[in-house]
Amino acid sequence: MKPLKGNAIIGQSGGPTSVINSSLYGVIREAKKQNAIQNLYGAIYGVEGVLGEELVDLFAEDRDAVEGLKKTPGAALGGCRYMIKSDDPEDKDIKRIFEVFGKYDIRYFFYNGGNDSMDTAHKIHHAAKKIGYELRVMGIPKTIDNDLEGTDHCPGYGSCAKYMITCVMEAGIHTESMYTSEPVTLLVTVGRNAGWLPAASTLARRREGDAPHIICFPEVPFEKEKFVADVERAYRKYGGVFIVTGEGLRDKDGNYINAVMGDLNTDAFGHPVLGGVAETLKQIIEENLKLKTRWIKPDICQQAAMHLAAKTDVLEAEMVGRAAVRFAVEGKSGFMVTLVREPGTGYRCRPGICELGRVANVDRYVPKEFISEDGIWTTPAFVDYCTPLIQGNVSIPMAGGLPDYPKLKRIRLKA
Amino acid sequence: MKPLKGNAIIGQSGGPTSVINSSLYGVIREAKKQNAIQNLYGAIYGVEGVLGEELVDLFAEDRDAVEGLKKTPGAALGGCRYMIKSDDPEDKDIKRIFEVFGKYDIRYFFYNGGNDSMDTAHKIHHAAKKIGYELRVMGIPKTIDNDLEGTDHCPGYGSCAKYMITCVMEAGIHTESMYTSEPVTLLVTVGRNAGWLPAASTLARRREGDAPHIICFPEVPFEKEKFVADVERAYRKYGGVFIVTGEGLRDKDGNYINAVMGDLNTDAFGHPVLGGVAETLKQIIEENLKLKTRWIKPDICQQAAMHLAAKTDVLEAEMVGRAAVRFAVEGKSGFMVTLVREPGTGYRCRPGICELGRVANVDRYVPKEFISEDGIWTTPAFVDYCTPLIQGNVSIPMAGGLPDYPKLKRIRLKA
Repeated sequence: MKPLKGNAIIGQSGGPTSVINSSLYGVIREAKKQNAIQNLYGAIYGVEGVLGEELVDLFAEDRDAVEGLKKTPGAALGGCRYMIKSDDPEDKDIKRIFEVFGKYDIRYFFYNGGNDSMDTAHKIHHAAKKIGYELRVMGIPKTIDNDLEGTDHCPGYGSCAKYMITCVMEAGIHTESMYTSEPVTLLVTVGRNAGWLPAASTLARRREGDAPHIICFPEVPFEKEKFVADVERAYRKYGGVFIVTGEGLRDKDGNYINAVMGDLNTDAFGHPVLGGVAETLKQIIEENLKLKTRWIKPDICQQAAMHLAAKTDVLEAEMVGRAAVRFAVEGKSGFMVTLVREPGTGYRCRPGICELGRVANVDRYVPKEFISEDGIWTTPAFVDYCTPLIQGNVSIPMAGGLPDYPKLKRIRLKA
Repeated sequence: MKPLKGNAIIGQSGGPTSVINSSLYGVIREAKKQNAIQNLYGAIYGVEGVLGEELVDLFAEDRDAVEGLKKTPGAALGGCRYMIKSDDPEDKDIKRIFEVFGKYDIRYFFYNGGNDSMDTAHKIHHAAKKIGYELRVMGIPKTIDNDLEGTDHCPGYGSCAKYMITCVMEAGIHTESMYTSEPVTLLVTVGRNAGWLPAASTLARRREGDAPHIICFPEVPFEKEKFVADVERAYRKYGGVFIVTGEGLRDKDGNYINAVMGDLNTDAFGHPVLGGVAETLKQIIEENLKLKTRWIKPDICQQAAMHLAAKTDVLEAEMVGRAAVRFAVEGKSGFMVTLVREPGTGYRCRPGICELGRVANVDRYVPKEFISEDGIWTTPAFVDYCTPLIQGNVSIPMAGGLPDYPKLKRIRLKA
């Protein structure tokens, strides 16, 4: 296929991860190598930056700032939760997007995000076809939730898991020191309805008795009586209990268990905001077992903990960014780059592709074979799956005893 | 003074810090050098271990395990929140303590903890005098709250601050990436009624606009209207707001602002348990400014984050442990070791002493000269005070991509 010459836009979407900027790094470095791509523009706050014509010139950034992306949390261009609602050429947002694309001769659109963001990329891909505007759209996976279809795992998950597991190890040792006065600790992970992060915390246990002792998976319907019995059993066995729970626990009828607490709101995407699950579980434990319970909500610290990022994750995030550019220049459009785990011993992933339509708005949950029969632990198969993803450390730039994260210049294009 | 020959007990009390085991290391190493101290026993779960005769032989630990203490979170012997209520020789606990002391010929009692623990040490010191039991009691300071009287700062504070500041930097960059959809983040520190930790977060700001933007000090009476105005002003200026708040915010009448939320309980020491302040502030912001607000509660991760401990803090914790042993052998009793900052340029602390009675049950708050006039920031004097305390990094043992924290053997004495 003849290379399509023109300019490219990259947008970061949804909540950042520790490695979303590594994907941006991969896109910038690879785009520079491709003759087909004449300019690479960054959209500020994702698709909002396209709609608002807030674009920056990424080829104008100096080399140090671009290298620094591999060691900077957050989304260097800004993320957003704005979604395109339709692929109809007459839709207001679609009209505006293609007006901007036309003005800047955009022929490549890279969108780095989760399942909601892949829906936006998918709609833009379809709209381009309907309009007859020659455009190559590639999604780049990103989410700490690890809930994207079609890929072995998601860049961002490994680093988030590594940080959260470290928190569980440290807070677990702390809790064990306090078993006689504060015997129960809960840690609530991010990840909405998918239990990939709580699952990862099982790697924290090296010795019998180490934290955690109970995992609450969103995939396993919550039963109060069983939960109380599980906590009591662990307490009798170890003298204290460390529990890691997902945000979105539901009962057998599908109702969020913290909905009764009155703290269930919805976010800009219409997803429920889940924060109160720890307070709900604490009340259940304290009422039924009279065990003093503390809880930890690391929230966005999990997504932002660059200082404990996994090197494997950083490298894979760069790889999917580079692959998106290569696939697009080779002629692909309407796909998300995936990570394909090579068979055999030793861990290695190569980039693959998956249709955006398969990924958009679909959640991938922790499968049954990764959850132990008692519903509160993982299987050895999960440990084999997860262990390679958290490997390797990243040394971050330090100054005055604290991280010294660099920033892009973000040189605006004149509208 | 003639050296007092006999055995020693060390107990760790209250919530652990990242460096409480460094003080234990200092006590063990120094006690081994002192001929006066024939055996050093560790009390399991602080004074509860004395009452229950749960003692371990610390001189029997191998050298690697003892060295490992400098790199292990939690309290290697276990902490407790149990307090001795009286120094009356007829008090049940006092009788039991001196029964155990007599049985094991204990002549040195080292107690490592915060203001509540110093009260217990103080009572044991007085009881010994009343009984006529020759005993040297030395308190060793420990608290992330930094609220102990008589000392420049407390071991544990610097490491906790370093971790929390790093969280604020990372979560701040993350939040800035999401200003158009999730513009406000709150982080609630530990530290009860003292604002030393929220104050430290001001070190996170290196560039204009960096997080945090507003500090809520427990020392400054909370006024809702002013708070809303401060948040609105920061939002207009920066496009988003990062707030760091202490746990124990009170209005001008001294009422906790989250008491109305119905989540105010008391802990085993009778202190209020303060977790709901973030939810209270979130509701105020969302109701008054319609700005979507997330919040982070790192809770005990702050006390346990060995992976981001400050080297200065580790060394000072060891120093106060060693000093406690030396002061006691020299004849001192009824004192807490303090850190005395040397005058002049360059930072250096030496150990001093302070009467336990001055420290017990007293809180030291952030003084006026460290809080800026607008009540939401610190002064340059605070920055000068705090900056040296977070310096230096500790490399922790790693295995399989995760920390590999060692454990003591805890060889029990036969009762």
